Amino acid sequence: MLKKAVVLLSGGIDSSTALYIAKKKGYKCFPLIFDYGQRQNREISSAKTISRRAGLPYTLLKINLPWKGSSLIDECIDIPRKRKKGIPSTYVPARNTIMLSFALSFAESTKASGIFIGAHTEDYSGYPDCKPNYFKAFEKVKNLGTKDGKKIKIVTPLINKTKAEIIKIGKELGVPYDLTWSCYKGGKKPCGVCDSCYYRARGFRDAGLKDPLTYKYQ
Amino acid sequence: MLKKAVVLLSGGIDSSTALYIAKKKGYKCFPLIFDYGQRQNREISSAKTISRRAGLPYTLLKINLPWKGSSLIDECIDIPRKRKKGIPSTYVPARNTIMLSFALSFAESTKASGIFIGAHTEDYSGYPDCKPNYFKAFEKVKNLGTKDGKKIKIVTPLINKTKAEIIKIGKELGVPYDLTWSCYKGGKKPCGVCDSCYYRARGFRDAGLKDPLTYKYQ
Repeated sequence: MLKKAVVLLSGGIDSSTALYIAKKKGYKCFPLIFDYGQRQNREISSAKTISRRAGLPYTLLKINLPWKGSSLIDECIDIPRKRKKGIPSTYVPARNTIMLSFALSFAESTKASGIFIGAHTEDYSGYPDCKPNYFKAFEKVKNLGTKDGKKIKIVTPLINKTKAEIIKIGKELGVPYDLTWSCYKGGKKPCGVCDSCYYRARGFRDAGLKDPLTYKYQ
Repeated sequence: MLKKAVVLLSGGIDSSTALYIAKKKGYKCFPLIFDYGQRQNREISSAKTISRRAGLPYTLLKINLPWKGSSLIDECIDIPRKRKKGIPSTYVPARNTIMLSFALSFAESTKASGIFIGAHTEDYSGYPDCKPNYFKAFEKVKNLGTKDGKKIKIVTPLINKTKAEIIKIGKELGVPYDLTWSCYKGGKKPCGVCDSCYYRARGFRDAGLKDPLTYKYQ
């Protein structure tokens, strides 16, 4: 029987690459997609399309976060146009902890042995819940707070990679980057201005590759 | 300005007592109630009624857990009639981790300084996510995985208390135990057979008090 993995899939470059890495490692993958009230649902459609392309049945979890406090879910707060030091307003309080706890519940219920998450430190060093010591702490919660958590491994295959390295790995694995979505805003084309567009553009440039999504970083 | 606290409220004896303790400590309380697809919604109505009685605005979070694996949310699995050693089938994978992560997100978004949870080890020693070392591990996740998590305290005021002690404390504080609900099954009257009915009955008996819910433990 194939070993199973729950893969957190947002529809961006990192999580899509993590999905293809899990597949390559021989896991039967179960993508877990969250609708937590993002101001745009473009990335959710991307995540669904990528799952379909990979021939995998996704699970979509709708969570209506009634509190706000992040420009990603609150339209009253502008998406920042310029990168500043510190934690950006796009930070969603405890987002990865919420997502990991659901992935853990899913994995334990279905006897999966892996949870894959595409988080990495290089680009988003502002987000506290993307750092190695955070995942180490969650590992302990997993082991102590569940019945079979010790049998489940949290895998962060990209944790120390740069965006350019991730793109190169994904290219080798055939990740359909044309279907991914990174922009914090919705719309037909990426805004080319937000942090996420910036890191994507820089990643492709540093990897020496052309982004299949045609837009220009301004 | 009053200090604020998010209080996880299930509608049972423990969480209702934790709510009244938080109130007594001078917190402005925000009860957080979960509808995670319990096979009965009697406890959710209790939680709402208790919030109203305490004059507090509750937040109800509806989570549609698409996976099952627990007799509390899966009607295909019987609620056990007899207590056995080990973790019972009423265990919901990673439930407290999911709830605490939402409480953390809520607390950080609203600048609350406390999260109250009525978990305790004595009665439910079978549940791994009710033990002190689990909460200690989650404390670390909170501190490392958020922006302002260090300012938020996770308070487990009942962690080492017995059910009888909890009932005595609540009685002093005026917790309306007639409005609480403990039975794992729904219905008009508690089943008087499940684990939760057993611990409730034993708690009142050991406290030398009469349960205001009139039913007989069989």
